[in-house]
Amino acid sequence: MNDLNDEKHVLSLLVDNTPGVLSSVVGLFSGRGFNITSLCVAETLDPKTSRITLVTSGDASVVEQIKKQLNKLIGVVKVYDFTGAGIVSRDMALVKVRARSGQRAEIFRNVDIFRGKVVDVGPDDYILEVTGNEAKVDAFIDLLKHIGIKEIARTGTIALARDK
Amino acid sequence: MNDLNDEKHVLSLLVDNTPGVLSSVVGLFSGRGFNITSLCVAETLDPKTSRITLVTSGDASVVEQIKKQLNKLIGVVKVYDFTGAGIVSRDMALVKVRARSGQRAEIFRNVDIFRGKVVDVGPDDYILEVTGNEAKVDAFIDLLKHIGIKEIARTGTIALARDK
Repeated sequence: MNDLNDEKHVLSLLVDNTPGVLSSVVGLFSGRGFNITSLCVAETLDPKTSRITLVTSGDASVVEQIKKQLNKLIGVVKVYDFTGAGIVSRDMALVKVRARSGQRAEIFRNVDIFRGKVVDVGPDDYILEVTGNEAKVDAFIDLLKHIGIKEIARTGTIALARDK
Repeated sequence: MNDLNDEKHVLSLLVDNTPGVLSSVVGLFSGRGFNITSLCVAETLDPKTSRITLVTSGDASVVEQIKKQLNKLIGVVKVYDFTGAGIVSRDMALVKVRARSGQRAEIFRNVDIFRGKVVDVGPDDYILEVTGNEAKVDAFIDLLKHIGIKEIARTGTIALARDK
């Protein structure tokens, strides 16, 4: 499915916060065999409205069709396509790493460099938090691999457009 | 739908990273009229596997049934129920606030107190990043309301269990 034409698309949707809307949005993608790389959904300032931020990759013309169909879905208020636009995007990851005594100084050093946080300390492990664009979060995780990662939870990308 | 018995449930699912799995997971909830308050899905260390973290509220016995059905779904590798367990949970929000000259000092003060970050500066607005548990992110957003919030994008909750 990964043609040379495939590019990454970031879509941001304002939707009604009711059961079924997320399901029909996600169904539109899977119905076409389109994978969603990451998706976040949470309430906005208005608890009646949620914002879905999703990242998908595929041919631009097919994504264009999906956008038209998303706009027609009941419960979808607004669709923004952030692809190529001036946006601020952020991911967050929680990473549980092995933290034997000999490794702790190195973990702290990496957390400092990436402006992360140690959010929990166990007898043999730390849970670390890091935020940044996708590439930065990827780099942080790569750096910790040789120390020993036990588990990861990532949010996927959220984004806002820069005002002109 | 909000009975007194309703409580918040945090579920963490390891699933195959293929089209259709997210759709069937989300469909299980909407099919029962259960709203998903927030959901994050992103790849794990193994790109063939994604982790879905979702928050829902409802009667414990119904959530128990949903968990059983989730376990039977094709593509669902493992279901963790973090409800009431020792977990570390984190939300992230990007908040675009009005930032006229008279308001900037106050914005910086609030960002400092909440250990947030100013991630973008426009002519009339800032984009701020904050992380923490749901209540902390809610409090940060509440504090900025009177300054003037233009837009918000939130990730929803991600979580990892503390090792015993």
